[in-house]
Amino acid sequence: MLGSTHGTLTTHFRARVDACGEEPHAAVHSMATATAEGGLDVSGRPLHAPVPDLDRFFRPESVAVVGASDTEGRPNTGITRQLIAWAERVGARLHPVHPARESVFGLTCSPTVADVPEQVDLAVLLVADPLPLIEELATSKVKFAVAFASGFAETGAEGTAAQERLSAAVERSGLRLLGPNTNLNAFESFREDLEGPAIALITQSGHQGRPVHTLQELGIRLSHWAPTGNEADLETADFISYFAGLPEVGAIACYVEGLKDGRSFLLAADRAARAGVPVVAVKVGRTETGARTAASHTGKLTGTDEVVDAAMRQFGVIRVDGLDELQDTAALLARARPPRADGVVVYSISGGTGAHFSDLATGAGLTLPTLSVAKQRELHEWIPDYLNVANPVDNGGHPVGDWRGRKIIDALLADPAVGVLICPITGPFPPMSDRLAQDLADAAEATDKLICVVWGSPVGTEEAYRTTLLGSSRVATFRTFRNCIGAVKAYLDHHRFTASYRSPFDDAPRTPSPSFRKAQALLRPGHQLSEHAAKQLLRAYGIRVPREQLVTSAAASVRAAALVGYPVVMKASGTRLAHKSELGLVKVGLTSASQVRDAYRELTDIARFESVDLDGILVCQMVERGVEMMVGVTQDALFGPTVTVGLGGVLVEVLRDTAVRVPPFGEDQARTMLDELRGRAILDGVRGGPPLDVDALVEVVLRVQRMALELGDDLVELDINPLVVLGRGQGAVALDALALCR
Amino acid sequence: MLGSTHGTLTTHFRARVDACGEEPHAAVHSMATATAEGGLDVSGRPLHAPVPDLDRFFRPESVAVVGASDTEGRPNTGITRQLIAWAERVGARLHPVHPARESVFGLTCSPTVADVPEQVDLAVLLVADPLPLIEELATSKVKFAVAFASGFAETGAEGTAAQERLSAAVERSGLRLLGPNTNLNAFESFREDLEGPAIALITQSGHQGRPVHTLQELGIRLSHWAPTGNEADLETADFISYFAGLPEVGAIACYVEGLKDGRSFLLAADRAARAGVPVVAVKVGRTETGARTAASHTGKLTGTDEVVDAAMRQFGVIRVDGLDELQDTAALLARARPPRADGVVVYSISGGTGAHFSDLATGAGLTLPTLSVAKQRELHEWIPDYLNVANPVDNGGHPVGDWRGRKIIDALLADPAVGVLICPITGPFPPMSDRLAQDLADAAEATDKLICVVWGSPVGTEEAYRTTLLGSSRVATFRTFRNCIGAVKAYLDHHRFTASYRSPFDDAPRTPSPSFRKAQALLRPGHQLSEHAAKQLLRAYGIRVPREQLVTSAAASVRAAALVGYPVVMKASGTRLAHKSELGLVKVGLTSASQVRDAYRELTDIARFESVDLDGILVCQMVERGVEMMVGVTQDALFGPTVTVGLGGVLVEVLRDTAVRVPPFGEDQARTMLDELRGRAILDGVRGGPPLDVDALVEVVLRVQRMALELGDDLVELDINPLVVLGRGQGAVALDALALCR
Repeated sequence: MLGSTHGTLTTHFRARVDACGEEPHAAVHSMATATAEGGLDVSGRPLHAPVPDLDRFFRPESVAVVGASDTEGRPNTGITRQLIAWAERVGARLHPVHPARESVFGLTCSPTVADVPEQVDLAVLLVADPLPLIEELATSKVKFAVAFASGFAETGAEGTAAQERLSAAVERSGLRLLGPNTNLNAFESFREDLEGPAIALITQSGHQGRPVHTLQELGIRLSHWAPTGNEADLETADFISYFAGLPEVGAIACYVEGLKDGRSFLLAADRAARAGVPVVAVKVGRTETGARTAASHTGKLTGTDEVVDAAMRQFGVIRVDGLDELQDTAALLARARPPRADGVVVYSISGGTGAHFSDLATGAGLTLPTLSVAKQRELHEWIPDYLNVANPVDNGGHPVGDWRGRKIIDALLADPAVGVLICPITGPFPPMSDRLAQDLADAAEATDKLICVVWGSPVGTEEAYRTTLLGSSRVATFRTFRNCIGAVKAYLDHHRFTASYRSPFDDAPRTPSPSFRKAQALLRPGHQLSEHAAKQLLRAYGIRVPREQLVTSAAASVRAAALVGYPVVMKASGTRLAHKSELGLVKVGLTSASQVRDAYRELTDIARFESVDLDGILVCQMVERGVEMMVGVTQDALFGPTVTVGLGGVLVEVLRDTAVRVPPFGEDQARTMLDELRGRAILDGVRGGPPLDVDALVEVVLRVQRMALELGDDLVELDINPLVVLGRGQGAVALDALALCR
Repeated sequence: MLGSTHGTLTTHFRARVDACGEEPHAAVHSMATATAEGGLDVSGRPLHAPVPDLDRFFRPESVAVVGASDTEGRPNTGITRQLIAWAERVGARLHPVHPARESVFGLTCSPTVADVPEQVDLAVLLVADPLPLIEELATSKVKFAVAFASGFAETGAEGTAAQERLSAAVERSGLRLLGPNTNLNAFESFREDLEGPAIALITQSGHQGRPVHTLQELGIRLSHWAPTGNEADLETADFISYFAGLPEVGAIACYVEGLKDGRSFLLAADRAARAGVPVVAVKVGRTETGARTAASHTGKLTGTDEVVDAAMRQFGVIRVDGLDELQDTAALLARARPPRADGVVVYSISGGTGAHFSDLATGAGLTLPTLSVAKQRELHEWIPDYLNVANPVDNGGHPVGDWRGRKIIDALLADPAVGVLICPITGPFPPMSDRLAQDLADAAEATDKLICVVWGSPVGTEEAYRTTLLGSSRVATFRTFRNCIGAVKAYLDHHRFTASYRSPFDDAPRTPSPSFRKAQALLRPGHQLSEHAAKQLLRAYGIRVPREQLVTSAAASVRAAALVGYPVVMKASGTRLAHKSELGLVKVGLTSASQVRDAYRELTDIARFESVDLDGILVCQMVERGVEMMVGVTQDALFGPTVTVGLGGVLVEVLRDTAVRVPPFGEDQARTMLDELRGRAILDGVRGGPPLDVDALVEVVLRVQRMALELGDDLVELDINPLVVLGRGQGAVALDALALCR
């Protein structure tokens, strides 16, 4: 039963499981563990992703370079030269492979990988078509390969087919492949002299990772760089999972153009969230242009942006727009210890700077607690009385020039309400800013609280900046207010998120509910269900609908009205009916048998006139007034079924005030969805009216999620609109629904 | 009549006019020209602001320093030393003034300013209380003074009173004062070796201007810096007006915490818009915290932020949030020539960079035209065929390393669809980026189109950046995608705005319309008008309301219903009545005399039960279905009456989907207001319904503006909700209105 309903997906995952079913504990390619450890949810999607063991990929002992060259002028020559230098640095043995050469740069050349005189950990493929090599590598038990060649999915249909052949060959082979369409970034060097937790970098486009790599020049440690390219095999998710388990990794920074598989990404993000390792990501695809361009670059779908955005938020992935934000946020999150309080104190040598920074910080959602009277009195020991020290703290400038400067900083850090001290130094003024920077750097060594400095000078060659601030591994230094505020917000949010994180995969349903069989019987493949049938679907999942009867004669409509109880609503019902109100196919407030009889005639007349195919007339209970919301299901190309909630009624199409989530998610996320609505306040009651039954609305969202998971892609679309939410304790009623079956 | 209605404002402006009525053409303090050149609008606000002549303020020939000192350890000593150095640089003669000293730093000291042996242009007041000096300076015909002292409006009620005394003294004196609570920033040095149009800087907080001043180290020319402090006299608006008339000023950069007077600011912005000089401003006060902190810093109201925001947009002031954006946007706008096309081409050495940049750029509203087939063919002469050159243009890297690089740039610049070429260089890779930077700098010298480069390296000490790019006065260089995109958007918007700019002050009404007398008779000072009276007010201004009659008996209600025509709506009417529907005080769809009679009884019963004071029952025409909007008037502390339009009905309070404007504004702005609504699409018709009468809605907004201007602050608040907008050509009808009189 399940198999037939969820054919595509189950088959997809099963195939991978079967392919390596022989070695369920193999570190490499252990998709089998999806079943072994976590199984599948009721939609046939895995509840667990294996963590590839990439130790030997990043620290290989022996490397074969297939297509190595030392002929001047050939592109492979430059690459070979760089690989030799890299191998020397990391202590790997490099073996050139070429069918026609004796040696390359003085190193003995083997005609094939099989001829290399030792077991090869990693093969770098500098050939135009890596496909024919895959089987040979597998035979030689090579664990990893990197393919530089381009011309695959990024070039259109033919390239996509070639990439699919490559993927299939890799999957059969048991090796793991990086690329194609990748580059030398996996073989960059990392500074060994930098300390503290590092950033691990994953980029689909190598060049886009360059600024993060360059952060090392500012003293920020990097541990890895995975340039994933077209992701014929290894994908962003694999690297996130792997990096999340490494002790030296403090944060994972990603540049993503498109995702290979939605669920893999969520499972990787879940793993990082469980491990408390922050993932910061730029994800291209905010606009149509960006999505199209990204597709032509690495041949990936960017996904519906609002769904990607929601999915990232659900699993605590911090999405940023700029590479500068990626650098600043990842660097802060990698290095800062967990906060001991959420309060931020803003400390400046200018009242204007404090006012400006606080304005932006509170606007972004940071909390600036007013310092206690006692603390303010303490600060006024060193700061003139006429200056405001409530937070922001304005010292007027002069106290930073002498011994008072450090006293003030220490007093602020000692305040239990303060978790973060931010000092925006708008303009460098050496008599003040040099000592201030030094005091901050010194104080940072002595505290476990976070100290952030914004160095506002556009120049950036100043000694206080380059030596004192960047020289400190404890001070987080920024160049703009905005990036500092964004990073601190992400830092506090991350720790709040992971502290209360509970994986939704632990609670995801694995077996169909009793509702499923009832619901399945109602589906009509390839059709839109009639309103009546759609409501029966809802009823199967325990979602309240009005009492109603479907009738096909005037006499029956009068009998039905008596049964559901006056006043009644009458509506045309048919399988291809939308916008009934606009067509005049809804009659409300009917209070007598004669009105019902008239309405029946009128509705069938209109339907005939409009050539509408009816399956009957619905006679429905009138529902008390409430607020019209909508709850729906849509299929996303990357993530499968998604659940939407929003303001309902006719305005929904105009205002598009909706929030979306990717299953599985728990009640907490269902409530957060409501908080994301601009019109959230409507649920607190309109114009002094009573608050509405938010619990009932949340319950409907969760039941719809269950339906979406169980029916999978057989339910192409569901739209409950309006769902009338009544007063608290009164429930919510689906007045109309539209369901489209695959 | 006018005088009594607009007492406060008229008096305020008249007083200033009278004070200097004797010298209407005096360059200094010529508020009189408000009347002479532009007069007052019907609300009593000036239609023209004089431009103070500040030439001698910024380039004085003789300067007196009152309170000069050379005693080591005194704060004034350091200041005196800096002023002497500054005077030497700018070629001004400096005269120390001190009652007890013979000489200061070897310069002969005068006991008072009157004793200085020549006419003094500018007096710098280093004394704790500048007030007693003002009269003395006036007697000596000193034109300008700067007061450093703090302790005025920024410190509370007492300080505010002191500042008011100072303002009054200055106004009487005829001199112009900068400060108090300002600093040495007006006496900074400016590099003489930089060429091209300059940035003129205005900051309320001196320190906050430092990064813009520092731009000179990156080769950006600065011409002036006005640190306005508490603005007891000279305010931001004065400097905007003055700078807008200087040929060397290419853009005006402002840091504003609070505005002294809304209208002055608008008139100054209008002057800049007429002159085509861009004004870029950081304005603190996005949040409550920011507003409060700013008030305690310079003692200024920040104003209702959404009103300030709208006012700035109306007059083309470019508002930014960060000082980095202020720098980048002002620098670009100062230096770039007007665009020849709005199209932006994005050119990069990486497909990922192009995809990412384009995504953000189109998301921000930039237009990236697809290059013509012919142009793409031309580009493929130098760029491999498999790379996408439609725009973004990806050259794959290699072509920038040789002669092809410049060819590509020139080909892009030659495209008539391209007005701006942006090259994001994400990471420096000297073999490519050095030559690319040089080619871009060379190309910039040879074109009048704008070339922007984003130098994405976080380091910023690279030669290509510091020498090649910053060394060019023609290339606009940025450090982040976001700032580049924001500045280019502002640049294109600015030129589009000024090209079609028509000052609303030219068309502002100066005399009351015939509606005014009728409307005035309806006002009831200190009261909220009844719905019926409020609708009469609307009718006086030609805004359509339903046919309706106010009745006080059941029999009269039946007669009234026959007159307005069935079906009718009946509502309770009273002076303190809001939320009638919720109280059950509205009955709709009454179709017979007996229903009308019953409704009359029921409404009066409810009113009695709820102790509601009625002036009668309204019997109103039922209006066809349309879309519910709202139009209103609110008084703003800074700007006076403002006009709001938004989605109406009960949802308005929840969704707050509104747009606001400060009068005077024309029809174009009324239409732009509608475009700012998130729910704008509702006016195009709901669910395939016909488009609505947008023209009628715009007309209502303009009539409400007229009412707001004519009734001034006598109309504290007006709220037309719902205003039902009917189908195109059918008009708009105010179904309910609330009006509050002062």
